[in-house]
Amino acid sequence: MGLKSLKLIAEDFIDPLKVAEVLPLYEALVVATREEPGCIHYELCQDLNNPGHFLFIEEWRDEAALDAHITSEHFQTIVPKIDQYALSDGRFTHMSKIL
Amino acid sequence: MGLKSLKLIAEDFIDPLKVAEVLPLYEALVVATREEPGCIHYELCQDLNNPGHFLFIEEWRDEAALDAHITSEHFQTIVPKIDQYALSDGRFTHMSKIL
Repeated sequence: MGLKSLKLIAEDFIDPLKVAEVLPLYEALVVATREEPGCIHYELCQDLNNPGHFLFIEEWRDEAALDAHITSEHFQTIVPKIDQYALSDGRFTHMSKIL
Repeated sequence: MGLKSLKLIAEDFIDPLKVAEVLPLYEALVVATREEPGCIHYELCQDLNNPGHFLFIEEWRDEAALDAHITSEHFQTIVPKIDQYALSDGRFTHMSKIL
């Protein structure tokens, strides 16, 4: 791969009492996102010690692909619904793979 | 896969001025770790906004495989050398994949 892909860990801190409400929203987001041409990897994990702590492990072809994701109709529609159940702001770590 | 694998994000917060010192240590750790039978995935990323913030994205066959890793000779030898250059404690998020 010539240019380095862009990796991202996106973390949500959801009210642990609202997990049942967000799971179908996450599922819809994941299904639509994996269809995006610039999406190399998009996986949702849950913290075993905090059920409200969700972590997306993402890999994008480039910055433009991530921008397209954030401005996509499904992101703009679904993410605000998820955020309703958040206890605090998310955490976003943009990374590149080194080893 | 019957039983769910164990996923882990292990984060180090290294003095940004000491990155050159830790990279060869990380490389030795990654090479040895990928040989471990219970290691499914072991990848090192670097925060694009903080060069001292390193993130291991890991997947282990099970808890016992992660325990074997932590008690391995290469882990016990190399990790303390890396930690010398840390500014603060690491952060460890044990997770399971849900989507």
